[in-house]
Amino acid sequence: MITVGAVLFPQFEMLDLYGPLQMYGMLSRSFEIRTVAETAGPVAANGGPDTVAMDSFADDQAYDLLLVPGGRGTRVQRGNPAMTGWLARAAGRAEWVTTVCTGSMVLAATGLLDGRRATTNKLAFDEVAGAFPAVDWQRRARWVMDGRVATSSGVSAGMDMTLAVIGEILGPERASDVARWAEYTPVADPDNDPFAAKDPAHD
Amino acid sequence: MITVGAVLFPQFEMLDLYGPLQMYGMLSRSFEIRTVAETAGPVAANGGPDTVAMDSFADDQAYDLLLVPGGRGTRVQRGNPAMTGWLARAAGRAEWVTTVCTGSMVLAATGLLDGRRATTNKLAFDEVAGAFPAVDWQRRARWVMDGRVATSSGVSAGMDMTLAVIGEILGPERASDVARWAEYTPVADPDNDPFAAKDPAHD
Repeated sequence: MITVGAVLFPQFEMLDLYGPLQMYGMLSRSFEIRTVAETAGPVAANGGPDTVAMDSFADDQAYDLLLVPGGRGTRVQRGNPAMTGWLARAAGRAEWVTTVCTGSMVLAATGLLDGRRATTNKLAFDEVAGAFPAVDWQRRARWVMDGRVATSSGVSAGMDMTLAVIGEILGPERASDVARWAEYTPVADPDNDPFAAKDPAHD
Repeated sequence: MITVGAVLFPQFEMLDLYGPLQMYGMLSRSFEIRTVAETAGPVAANGGPDTVAMDSFADDQAYDLLLVPGGRGTRVQRGNPAMTGWLARAAGRAEWVTTVCTGSMVLAATGLLDGRRATTNKLAFDEVAGAFPAVDWQRRARWVMDGRVATSSGVSAGMDMTLAVIGEILGPERASDVARWAEYTPVADPDNDPFAAKDPAHD
């Protein structure tokens, strides 16, 4: 059983979290989903309802796979030592670390993306890349897998990254099963990025 | 402001709910999202965390647009008079009624789909169509819009249906904006259904 630790914080983006959780949730014999936040209990999505965090950072649980969503709240969380301290420790114990959208900014704030290839939301690209110049940010990428650290482009791209991660862990056939059950046609090529950030030098 | 009433019940399917809510949530000047369940408070997703219902059926609130997700729990809810009674009343007061996946089975149980064109999850198609033969079920459809009743195919199809509904309400340009912000390439043709249910006569 692979334990997924889905990280919540106020103003997380709904699909960043639930797109990936849908895919893991369809393989309930292989993945167990847990939610974790600074404090256990309800956490408000950006413009949406509360999701309940099962665990708190103080519980100091280990997870096999971390999922960090993006959203407006990442601007606060990248400077929140409770988040970055917990995330650095949890990432060190996890087999896989994954982020969606501007969730990569929270992971970057731990220093764990320094020197790694990574991507992020394409509308926020220059903001994110400018704030963390030690990361090798990719302007054109649906997702990037650098070892067992996977970062995805904005919002819906988290589903494609997750299917790729499932493919790595359980094999591509299982990832295909999940996509079919969800009636989802995934972007299977990580370089296929119709939303790629423009190079400012060529604007 | 268009009030979205997102209906929760135990074992709802995560992406059925949150795919559409992501799209409405990106237009926070036009849509206000509320969650409603038989009892206010936490409601468990199928294989996932709890989402908090803001309103209860007893509050007897009116919503402009209803969203009924699918999931394992629909098999119980189609026979739950608290759900079907509330849904029939709320649908009568709503401008738009929308379902995702097997959510159409819960709406069908109110009788409101009788004589209408509708669709559902394609892996559950024969179960759903067999249970509610007075509905004109469509085997091949990403989603179906019959007046202001919109039903979608399984899980991820709810996002495409929602963009079509947004297009009807606010115009196609706003729907395109949302898709771009979500870095999502929608299925724009409701008849484009790679997961279409096979006709049993031709199996």
